[in-house]
Amino acid sequence: METNRLEAFSDGVLAIIITIMVLELKVPHGADLEALKPLLPVCLSYVLSFIYVGIYWNNHHHLLKACRKVTGPIMWANLHLLFWLSLFPFAAGWLGENHLAALPTALYGVVLLCAAIAYSILQRYILKNQGSDSKLAAALGRDFKGKLSPVFYLVAIPTAFYHSWISACMYVGVAFMWLVPDRRIERAVAGEK
Amino acid sequence: METNRLEAFSDGVLAIIITIMVLELKVPHGADLEALKPLLPVCLSYVLSFIYVGIYWNNHHHLLKACRKVTGPIMWANLHLLFWLSLFPFAAGWLGENHLAALPTALYGVVLLCAAIAYSILQRYILKNQGSDSKLAAALGRDFKGKLSPVFYLVAIPTAFYHSWISACMYVGVAFMWLVPDRRIERAVAGEK
Amino acid sequence: METNRLEAFSDGVLAIIITIMVLELKVPHGADLEALKPLLPVCLSYVLSFIYVGIYWNNHHHLLKACRKVTGPIMWANLHLLFWLSLFPFAAGWLGENHLAALPTALYGVVLLCAAIAYSILQRYILKNQGSDSKLAAALGRDFKGKLSPVFYLVAIPTAFYHSWISACMYVGVAFMWLVPDRRIERAVAGEK
Amino acid sequence: METNRLEAFSDGVLAIIITIMVLELKVPHGADLEALKPLLPVCLSYVLSFIYVGIYWNNHHHLLKACRKVTGPIMWANLHLLFWLSLFPFAAGWLGENHLAALPTALYGVVLLCAAIAYSILQRYILKNQGSDSKLAAALGRDFKGKLSPVFYLVAIPTAFYHSWISACMYVGVAFMWLVPDRRIERAVAGEK
Repeated sequence: METNRLEAFSDGVLAIIITIMVLELKVPHGADLEALKPLLPVCLSYVLSFIYVGIYWNNHHHLLKACRKVTGPIMWANLHLLFWLSLFPFAAGWLGENHLAALPTALYGVVLLCAAIAYSILQRYILKNQGSDSKLAAALGRDFKGKLSPVFYLVAIPTAFYHSWISACMYVGVAFMWLVPDRRIERAVAGEK
Repeated sequence: METNRLEAFSDGVLAIIITIMVLELKVPHGADLEALKPLLPVCLSYVLSFIYVGIYWNNHHHLLKACRKVTGPIMWANLHLLFWLSLFPFAAGWLGENHLAALPTALYGVVLLCAAIAYSILQRYILKNQGSDSKLAAALGRDFKGKLSPVFYLVAIPTAFYHSWISACMYVGVAFMWLVPDRRIERAVAGEK
Repeated sequence: METNRLEAFSDGVLAIIITIMVLELKVPHGADLEALKPLLPVCLSYVLSFIYVGIYWNNHHHLLKACRKVTGPIMWANLHLLFWLSLFPFAAGWLGENHLAALPTALYGVVLLCAAIAYSILQRYILKNQGSDSKLAAALGRDFKGKLSPVFYLVAIPTAFYHSWISACMYVGVAFMWLVPDRRIERAVAGEK
Repeated sequence: METNRLEAFSDGVLAIIITIMVLELKVPHGADLEALKPLLPVCLSYVLSFIYVGIYWNNHHHLLKACRKVTGPIMWANLHLLFWLSLFPFAAGWLGENHLAALPTALYGVVLLCAAIAYSILQRYILKNQGSDSKLAAALGRDFKGKLSPVFYLVAIPTAFYHSWISACMYVGVAFMWLVPDRRIERAVAGEK
């Protein structure tokens, strides 16, 4: 019951983030295919960001289910994560409007990186709260994906200034890697009950 | 309890979608009837889209009530549905601003079609999860409406390039057909308890 | 438990409506008092509309607490109410930008009137569902306020074309009349328990 | 259970406020560093306001947990608080676009002050409802932070017209002071159970 309101608030913020991103898809003035064309990259960037927010919601859902008591630091670590996620609409909109230009592509990676770091901080606080011998800790194990993603982002950010499409591919690749929900936690929680 | 957060998140997204559509009704600069006139088609398209999102919320509500456990694929099938529904404000705004021009009318149908397909995928995953001999499966039966709607959309999309008002009538017609909530599932769930 | 999701969805929509109205308060370009001045009427119209949505949320809260089972017609009556409430940001924005011009003042009244009618339809469906001898029915009694408000709106709409400030005063007056929450229902529900 | 819907509604509004503030970060047209530069002050003002809304959400969460029954005045005191918080996106946007110009800096303080007053009114009503000998009353004690903050805002508002950066520092300072969640209430509620 303690975590209910934190979940509800995070759900609210995530639901709004995922939905206001679509506002970057500005209704064009013309009514022909020409008018739709410049929207294609915006649309692709929207799809990618939608998937990323979906991944975060998914993992956040599982992580919080493993959390039994919300403390002050957990609350703020959660808000910190929401802050970086709230920059997704901006980063996605800028990326979409500039066809993989260097700086927007790099900035998109920076936002992804910061969100990943914020998530791992939140995870650490919840782990600390549960005890390092908890099932959650065992389930996360070496946390392969969580440690690999920031490395990819760190490589993708400077790469954006040389071959921005490689960076874009890396963002897409990491998303695919995460599309499978974090079954480790899922399993551990199920086993605990 | 498992499905609570999925419901809450979907409700949040649907509530935002249904409300930001009204942002397409831009406040006009004049204060006379002339200023309101160009808003009439936008308003009609808003009403139709509001009804469609209402229908989806309604059916989604009943469908999730029949779902007992949320799995990874169900979560992603749900997000996939929300993605297509999130394009309603864009499609409705473009349709409203262009008085039934061919392409916007067709695109509106494409979004409707994709949402319908996404809904049926979600339904299939929940059915699979419940067992095909479940009451939900029996209740859905031949799923008359669910199978008829995509056919209408498929006919309406090419028709938009010849007589777009016929397509518009079809969209309105399908909405009317769905306005009656999915009592089959409602009944089955009630019977199960 | 049946009414939970209807409440949650309505809360979501009302929370968004009440918040996106503030988006009509566009950030001015200048940084002096001159830049703020044209925002004053927009701000006043925002305050009034905020109070109206607050009143609706309040009464809706009490009404739904008296409702035990959500039926199809109740769901649609509720969506119908939310539709008219969703037009508040538009009506408030237009009124605020045009300093009590005739048509925007009248339109504001039309939206208020339609929302009031939609509310009374929802109330009727819930009453029908509870039986006319229910405590809710007894509590509502002659429903003085609910019957008086539409009369005021009906008078205010044509008046807007002659002396729009009289209409505005009437809108403010009705809001004041409603500011006291609907204790009749509150009391009846408490008595029932 | 009584307070659930008030919490849900407040969470919804706070989630929307915290998220639409990011809409003030308009996607720039260029794709270079020059295009990002004017966004820096907007971004800083967004960060500060995000923290303030986070603080309010945090304290509001604890305060409402101490509240056992929602009365009419508590409902309206809560809406009154939400009203002032809903002006944060506007005040933050204006401040961010005008690099600490006098009037926007002062207005930001006015909104902060009004929100602080509204919060203390809500706190008083909940206290009255709980009895002055309740654990909440004991926990709040002299309510040091709650009484100090408005003093800071009151000093910062006129100061903005002379040295606006001093006002900005004070806003930041108060935020830091509050970043520690209100453990007094937290502890009292825990003790009560």
